[in-house]
Amino acid sequence: MSLVVVGSMAYDAIETPFGKTDKILGGAATFISIAASYFMEKVNAISVIGYDFDEKYLEMMRSKGIDLDGVELISDQKSFFWSGRYHNDMNSRDTLVTELNVLANFDPKVPESYQDCEFLMLGNLTPDIQRSVINQMKKRPKLIALDTMNFWIDNTLDSLKETLTMIDVLIINDEEARQLSGDYSLKVAAQTIMKMGPEYLVIKKGEHGALLFHKNEIFSAPGLPLEEVYDPTGAGDTFAGGFIGHLAKSNDISFTNMKRAVIYGSALASFCVEKFGTERLEGLTLGEVENRVRQFVNLADFDMLSQDISDALDQSA
Amino acid sequence: MSLVVVGSMAYDAIETPFGKTDKILGGAATFISIAASYFMEKVNAISVIGYDFDEKYLEMMRSKGIDLDGVELISDQKSFFWSGRYHNDMNSRDTLVTELNVLANFDPKVPESYQDCEFLMLGNLTPDIQRSVINQMKKRPKLIALDTMNFWIDNTLDSLKETLTMIDVLIINDEEARQLSGDYSLKVAAQTIMKMGPEYLVIKKGEHGALLFHKNEIFSAPGLPLEEVYDPTGAGDTFAGGFIGHLAKSNDISFTNMKRAVIYGSALASFCVEKFGTERLEGLTLGEVENRVRQFVNLADFDMLSQDISDALDQSA
Repeated sequence: MSLVVVGSMAYDAIETPFGKTDKILGGAATFISIAASYFMEKVNAISVIGYDFDEKYLEMMRSKGIDLDGVELISDQKSFFWSGRYHNDMNSRDTLVTELNVLANFDPKVPESYQDCEFLMLGNLTPDIQRSVINQMKKRPKLIALDTMNFWIDNTLDSLKETLTMIDVLIINDEEARQLSGDYSLKVAAQTIMKMGPEYLVIKKGEHGALLFHKNEIFSAPGLPLEEVYDPTGAGDTFAGGFIGHLAKSNDISFTNMKRAVIYGSALASFCVEKFGTERLEGLTLGEVENRVRQFVNLADFDMLSQDISDALDQSA
Repeated sequence: MSLVVVGSMAYDAIETPFGKTDKILGGAATFISIAASYFMEKVNAISVIGYDFDEKYLEMMRSKGIDLDGVELISDQKSFFWSGRYHNDMNSRDTLVTELNVLANFDPKVPESYQDCEFLMLGNLTPDIQRSVINQMKKRPKLIALDTMNFWIDNTLDSLKETLTMIDVLIINDEEARQLSGDYSLKVAAQTIMKMGPEYLVIKKGEHGALLFHKNEIFSAPGLPLEEVYDPTGAGDTFAGGFIGHLAKSNDISFTNMKRAVIYGSALASFCVEKFGTERLEGLTLGEVENRVRQFVNLADFDMLSQDISDALDQSA
């Protein structure tokens, strides 16, 4: 199945308690595409870059089967740049610099060669732009997934809500779910949000794993306890890439298979945080991915004795 | 197998965003014993109460098979009293009143009839008192589990560390694990703490579930998403009661069975928070408990296709 990924390709400069970087490769579409490339021979990317975007990064992405026909180069502007500093607990960060540059007037165009797209992953962008991509699709994709963030919930809620009516899967974090729904309970928030449009909702909880909601079904994926979180940047995008990559590869959008997709997304994200930027993600082997998936299987595995259950039911009868 | 539970029996007055109570039944040994009573015909309690402790609460506990021979009545003092107010997110609270009363000079005595105890659950108390109970046991129990809190980590760390060398399972929350170990990563914290004595460590994470550690094994139990958390008081004790109750009932302290115990503890705790104090916990049927356990099974259930894994390994070979 074909997959289209839309989002930023950018430079990030990151400070964590473990160190700081100069401008390194970042951006939602970058993380999503690289993660998805472990599942797909070809990933069709849509983004915008400036004259300062290093050719070596484009080469790296091409070598992973990422088609860059949809990546526009603006030759007289710089690439999107974000700089942030993580606090000691790695769960919160300060944005130091945001330079929109090429992203300020991003008007994505879906290349003709991407029009057969069956899976569409809309990375974090203004909801207007996300909607414009959906509207350019001559045939509606089989599955449209979308990531967003608190900034759009705060500032462009009406546009976001319009976009939500057009998608199948929303992928956000717990704080965003509470903000978007106005509900504190994630169970209640999920019902509120699914009424806005998406039939499936993934709520990412960082080190605590992720929840998948669909109608009245809930799946809880564990967070893999890690010895060290080196740099959380891009972990959410990487999750989305693993998630949509597995779905597109298997061409199965059942709840059962979407649970597997959450595990693949979680596994990829758990690698992402082990080094700065895309460094760890770029060098993975599929064997490493599968070993990590097995760790998730073991981590969550338990079996209740049916004897216990029938004993108890006998006593309570 | 026989089970002894040690801890406070108390009055609590609680304010949450949903309402406030007068003095209602509380205390670690109360919650632990009631939760464990769903697994055991008899639970042997050790505690101390004052003249104001209502006979109806003792009756209720006796009706659940809780043996109160180890509960000392101090006829000229009042029972331990705690009052607290929860914040809107229910994850933090302010203590309004702590009156130690009978607990100030609590010197628990293990009745002769409790000496055959094979499972010992030491609820939150000063580490000195917890140790004194262990030392009174003529034969070391098969399994000793212990709960503690940040107050003892702050104020009586040496005594706590001495007690930790004598136990098998430590049950604490994530904040306490970080505080006790000095490590932020729970995976690293667990290794640090297990070196202090306990072979098993349970880290409770509230709405995010619980982690069980033993040597290099980790189990992650999901948190059941709830529509409403009415009152979190006693949830941790209730977890401990379900955990130790299942272990004592099954008389199996393998890691495999301890994972089940974590699920039972989580299931019981998920009821506890649905009403104020012990109200919800008192009235459960075993059928309700088993249905709740099935929800945990469904919540965490996923299967990775072995075909996916072998496909991937083929490609990466």
